[in-house]
This record gives sequence, structure tokens and C-alpha cells, in this order.
Amino acid sequence: MTDVVARLRDALGDIVDTSDAARAAVRADKSGHAAAGTPLAVVHAASVADVQATLRIATETGTPVVPRGAGTGLAGAANTGAGEIALSLRAMDRLLEVRPDDLLAVVEPGILNADLNTALAPHGVWWAPDPASREISTVGGNIATGAGGLLCAKYGVVRDAVLALDVVLADGRLLRLGHRSVKGVTGYDLTSLLIGSEGTLGVVVGATLKLRRLVPGGVCTIAGVFRGVREAAAASAAVTAAGIQPAIMELMDAASLAAVHDLLALPAPPPGAAQLTIQTDGPAAAADAYAIAAVLRAGGGEVAVSDDPAEGERLLRIRRSMHPAMERLGTTLIEDVSVPRSALPAMFDEIARIEREYGLVIPTVAHAGDGNLHPNFVFDGPEVPPAVWDAAGELFRAALRLGGTLTGEHGIGVLKRRWLKGELGSDQWELQRQIKRVFDPAGILNPGKVFA
Amino acid sequence: MTDVVARLRDALGDIVDTSDAARAAVRADKSGHAAAGTPLAVVHAASVADVQATLRIATETGTPVVPRGAGTGLAGAANTGAGEIALSLRAMDRLLEVRPDDLLAVVEPGILNADLNTALAPHGVWWAPDPASREISTVGGNIATGAGGLLCAKYGVVRDAVLALDVVLADGRLLRLGHRSVKGVTGYDLTSLLIGSEGTLGVVVGATLKLRRLVPGGVCTIAGVFRGVREAAAASAAVTAAGIQPAIMELMDAASLAAVHDLLALPAPPPGAAQLTIQTDGPAAAADAYAIAAVLRAGGGEVAVSDDPAEGERLLRIRRSMHPAMERLGTTLIEDVSVPRSALPAMFDEIARIEREYGLVIPTVAHAGDGNLHPNFVFDGPEVPPAVWDAAGELFRAALRLGGTLTGEHGIGVLKRRWLKGELGSDQWELQRQIKRVFDPAGILNPGKVFA
Repeated sequence: MTDVVARLRDALGDIVDTSDAARAAVRADKSGHAAAGTPLAVVHAASVADVQATLRIATETGTPVVPRGAGTGLAGAANTGAGEIALSLRAMDRLLEVRPDDLLAVVEPGILNADLNTALAPHGVWWAPDPASREISTVGGNIATGAGGLLCAKYGVVRDAVLALDVVLADGRLLRLGHRSVKGVTGYDLTSLLIGSEGTLGVVVGATLKLRRLVPGGVCTIAGVFRGVREAAAASAAVTAAGIQPAIMELMDAASLAAVHDLLALPAPPPGAAQLTIQTDGPAAAADAYAIAAVLRAGGGEVAVSDDPAEGERLLRIRRSMHPAMERLGTTLIEDVSVPRSALPAMFDEIARIEREYGLVIPTVAHAGDGNLHPNFVFDGPEVPPAVWDAAGELFRAALRLGGTLTGEHGIGVLKRRWLKGELGSDQWELQRQIKRVFDPAGILNPGKVFA
Repeated sequence: MTDVVARLRDALGDIVDTSDAARAAVRADKSGHAAAGTPLAVVHAASVADVQATLRIATETGTPVVPRGAGTGLAGAANTGAGEIALSLRAMDRLLEVRPDDLLAVVEPGILNADLNTALAPHGVWWAPDPASREISTVGGNIATGAGGLLCAKYGVVRDAVLALDVVLADGRLLRLGHRSVKGVTGYDLTSLLIGSEGTLGVVVGATLKLRRLVPGGVCTIAGVFRGVREAAAASAAVTAAGIQPAIMELMDAASLAAVHDLLALPAPPPGAAQLTIQTDGPAAAADAYAIAAVLRAGGGEVAVSDDPAEGERLLRIRRSMHPAMERLGTTLIEDVSVPRSALPAMFDEIARIEREYGLVIPTVAHAGDGNLHPNFVFDGPEVPPAVWDAAGELFRAALRLGGTLTGEHGIGVLKRRWLKGELGSDQWELQRQIKRVFDPAGILNPGKVFA
């Protein structure tokens, strides 16, 4: 083991960090769950060559490597433990090229999502994926998890927004996948295969991103308060069914809303009340907002519409404060099931059933525009109690029965490994493991993640 | 060999077709190129079980199977030759489910693209991929090639429009890939891997398609005639760079335009003239059309704008008549390079250079909105002359130099195999072959296609 670190240091010098603080920091991600033991070292790669050198040494010495962006994941995929090397891409954060005429940008993986969009704005373009973590998460991490966000129903997820990837394989070879053109079907789509592969197939060292033009005009924000979460879920499904496409449509149940109001020192909401926060944009923003307000009122909502950006920001801040509000209550297991939009009310019924059966409160927010729910299990101490795992398993099975999936945008990591085979089926699970072996025959790339 | 047919007939009865006519028909696709020899049989599958039975027998007997839709491919991927079974999915053509509220439909693979959209229209939804062959090509074939079309720059390609696939593996096992929800990142994205895999990884027997709502309002059509193709290409790039998003933007060079005018008995266009045919849609259709007209005029175009649907159809018919116009001139090798949109003028310069160097005329049309060009090599007799292959190779290298790809939407099939490694690089090419072996260890699924 000392030999591995010595070889890394020989090849890479100072960017090999063996400080206790650095090695402790990479044991966990934002899920709060940590790997067992402490890794050998953290390599702060500054170039593609650094990544290649690290992986060559790892292959020669049979040492596991865990790629890492900003560590904001919620499934433990970047957690690095005993005997492993954490390979940080965070310092590779340059925006290399912007082509508004071709609607593309070339970036290094460590650039933060929000920083990228700040740099793109003067060119009149943006990159649409907007995970709630966008201020603190990297584009490389967004790609590794196949991240979604709030704007996805209208503007797509990461998979819709990447043209090409530069990837270093486990043995250090560099592959260039995809192309700069809008269309292209040369061979298999390995770009899509790498997106969401959670560091198990290769290390993304560069990305050509598909951009959009900035949406002209302002936004309108609609807040709808409902008697209960089922009414709110039904109203959001009615908005989609009415053929109106909001940019953002977020749902907060009573427990979420109460916790956030408490955190932000706002007046307590009515007991049991759930809220929809909806934003429209583009030339028809106002007309869409009033059409949506009518649908919400027909669904029993108390509705306010505003075209004031500050008021819109204030309302969305309530939604964005969910994660800190939960952190105040204890350790949180944030789930991430996704269902067809029409099944949203049924999924909330299932959550209510699971709350009753397991004697739990499961505060839940949802990207209601695309059917992605984040039920939060809150508990004391660092370990997930068995009863919470049982309830989570019940949640996953319910999502699958409704035609959904156990993870919409967070990934499998370590926290959802045990349910993966249940969703994929044994045949597909085994096929996916074989694909993993094609990319990484020695099994040194993020071992133990995704596949149990 | 007789034994294989006997076993198929035993298991499947009448759907095993050994008539000379059927076996001759599946030797070729719309590329005009045919496989050597005549296949053993054509299986007209009517169910998933038929597909599974065929593949089980094929695996047990080591017999190659070539999946086939309507045979409208342009790269020879569905061509079936001596010793092979043609597995036709054309009869599996049911629309199984439409969910406008979830913007999805479930189909069998043999349904024609245009028939699907006719059936969807009363529900207020449509499936966006619109290859020029949409009247005669199947959705399964569209998926197998990763088809594009005219509307792609605005509304996406097949890869953007599929949620889930049911796939039968070479050994007859059925896999269910993907899910019905908008978001989902459970394991590797095998749905995307199968799209564009040209029948080499599995047989698509069902698809859950991502739909769009019908675009409200009418369309406006803009025709711009330019002195030469370079001016037309520069004007189309200027439209994209100006931030206007047409639904359709098609370019025809002088040779194409002259050939189609001749076919349709229209007055001959001015010598050397090239044409842009552009369509806008949605609430801003008229405003966008006038903005585009201004850009075209600034680029030297003689421009007409119309909001009459019949006139729009008349203009687009000229573009859609390209393939029949070429067929009148001889055997056609239709190429399919794609480049970043800003590189379109440079790509036309390269085509002009290749025409000069090889003493050829290469009539070319382009989906100018997304940078996808279809240069046509026309020659006598069934075989592509060596000089044409040399010129095509030069064309591919030029596209790659410009950041593009050798096939935007037609696929590799047999006709582009020899250039695949040049685009992918040896490492990626070998990795893709290994992925093929994971899915099809015995190598019975469409062998010899894609990989030389």
C-alpha cells in the first residue's frame, strides 16, 4: 500500500494528498453515509495526463480508484474507503470552448454547474440540467449520476444535454466518445452508456455539452396551497394532462412544508396543507400561468400568481430549503423514486400507507412536472435503522408497480444496490455486470458501487 | 440448413416463408445494395414468442439472424444473404397503449412511423422523429438505426424519444429495458445502447415512446433561392447563429434542385442556384418566418414567405422528391455525413473540392438546421465503382476533420463498415466489439454488419 502511494507521488508529486483531513473528507458524500476505513490518498488531478497516470498505477498495483467531483452525491457513489484511491476531478474546472452558433460548450469535469451557467450567460446560452445542488455540484458529477433537476420536464436531463465525452479507462487509455454534431449514429452510443454510470466504467475528463439559447422574457410564479398532499398531486397531474408545460412544478407535502417554514421562521402553514410551486417561462409565461391557476383552483387550491422575480425567488427558496430543513431533524435518507406523472397521486397514497404501516413520518417533496419524488426518512445516529430500510424497500416496490423506477436522478451508489436486481431483473443485471467487466476487467473502478 | 428450416417450420408453422419471392426481397434494402446469395427463410413474426422461438432455434443451430422492419434502410443493415434467416417484425404493428396524460405510447416494432402519428393525432400528441421515409419505415427500424429526419434540430432524434424497450437477446431471452417515467438512472442506460445498434445486440419487440403535444397553430414556409450552394449554406448557418429555431431547414444544391425540377416537370431553376426551404411553427411561426426571411435576404437570397399550408407542402415536396429524382439517374450511394452547423459552408467547400478532384458530380441535400448532409454518388450498374468509394472516403475524412461524423442518421450497415474504425479509433472499436460479444456471444445476430 505504501508502495502505491510512493509510486503515485513519484509520478504526480504534490497533487497526491495523504493528509488526514483530505482522506477523511472523501469518505462520505452528501448522503451522510461514509465508507468504512480511510483511503490511501486523494489525487487532485489537474490534467488528463494526471488521471491517466493515476489509473495506470492503480491498474499495475490492483488498487481501487473512486472518481469524485464535489462530493454532493446522495447515494454514496463517491464514498472512498480503506485501501482505495480517491481521484478528485474538482481542480479540472476550465470552460475550454463556447460556441453559441453551434449551441455547444467544451468543459473539464470539475466546473460547477452554476459557474458554468454564469460563464455561458453573456453568450446568450445555458446548459439546462439544474440539480438542486447546482451551486455546489460539478458538471462531471452531474454526468456521472445522470442528474436531473427542477427544469427537466420542459428542458431535459443530462442525457439530453451531452454530445461527447472524453473518458479515461481503468487501464489509463483515453477514449473520445460522441461528436460535435447534433446527429450521429456511428457505432454504439457509448456516450449515453457512460452517463449515469457512477464512475464504474471510466473517468470523464472532458465533455462537449449541448446548450440551449436563453429563454426570452420573464417568468411567472404560481403558488397553490391545498388541503392535503393528494389534492396537490392530483392538481399537478391535471396541469400536465391539460397540456400546459410549466418550466418548474414542485410539490411539498405537509411535513416538508412545516419543517421548512420552521427553518425559515415563516408563519406555520395550515395543518395538513401541501403546496405546489410552479413557474412558467417564455413568450407565453403569463398566459400559461393564468391557465395553470385555473386548473389548480378547479382542483381545490388557494392560488396566487406573481410575475415579480423576487417573489418567485422567495417561493422557490422554500422548496430549495428542504435539504437543510431535513438535516436539522436528524440523519436523512433521501429517496428518489420516479413514476409516470399520472401515477403521482397513487404514489402519495402508497407513501401514506407506508407511513401508517411502519409508524414513520416521511416528509416528501416532488418534481411534480416529471413524476420524481424525494421521500425523506429521518432518524437518529449515523446508521439507517432496519425498519427504515424495510420501509424504503416497500417504497421502491410501490414505485415499480406503478411503472416507475427506484432512482430518478440520484443513482444507485451503495445505498440502493440491494434493490437494483429487483428493478432490472436477473438477466439484465448480469448483462450489465458483464458490460462493466468489458470496460474494467480488473474491477478497480469504483468497486462495490452500483452492483452489490 | 434444411434442418434449420424444418425446425423453424415445426415451431412456427406458416409464418416461415421460403418462397423465392420473399427470400429475394429481403436480400436488399433501399440502398440498392444486396447481400450475396439467398437466405434460408423469412420468418414473419406475429408475437414476442415467435421472435423468441426463432432466436432459440438460431442459437441452437448456430444460424445467423437478420432482423428487419420495412427494409427502407440506406446502409444495408437489413440485407440478408446465404445461410441466414430474415426475421421480419413488420407484422407486429399494433399500437398497444396511448397515454396523453403521461405523454407516452407503447407500440410493437412493425408499426409504420406515419401510421403511428395518424393514430396519435386524435389524442393531441405525436412522436417527433420524422425520417424522410416516414410513410414507409417502421418505428422499430427507426429505433434500430437511431433515425433522425427533418424536424430534429427543434424536436430531437429517436434517442430523445424512447423511454423503454423490450428486447429479445440472441439466445431468446426477453429483457425489459428502461421505464415509463420521465426520469430514471437505475444502472446503465441499455435503452440508449440498443438505439442505433442496427440489429447487432438484440431484437426490439416493443417500445415505450416519449410523445410531444401537437404544436398549436399553423406553419409558415420560407423559400430562399441563392446564387450558389455556399451562399445558401452560409445563410442557413446565419439563421442558427441568429438564435431563431425553425422546425425544418432543408438545403438543396444546384444539381439536386435541377434533377428534382426535371422529375416534377417544373421550370428549370437558374443555373447554379441552390435553395433553402424553411418551416416555422408554434405561436411565433409568423414572427420567426419574417425574421428568417430578413437573415436570408441579408445573405443574398431571393425570398418568399407563405402561411398557406398547400404552398408549404408544394415546396417541401420538392425536397422530398430527391430520392426518386436520384433513382432516375442511376444507382445511388446516399451518404450521410453530419457536421457542427457552423461548419456547413466548409463542408460544401470540401464536397466541391472532391467533385473537382474525382471528376464527379455529387448532388447534395442537407438538413441544414442540424448540419446533416446527404451527398449522392450516382453511377451505372449495381456495384459502387472504386473511384466512388475513394471519393466517399475523402468525404468522411473531411467530415471528421470538421468535428463531425460519417453517419448522422442512416447507420453503418455494410456500406460504411470500412470507415468505422477511422472514426471510433481502434481502442473504442475493439471495446464496442466486446460489448457486442456480451450480448451475442455466438455472433448470430446480424453478423458482418457494423463491424467489418
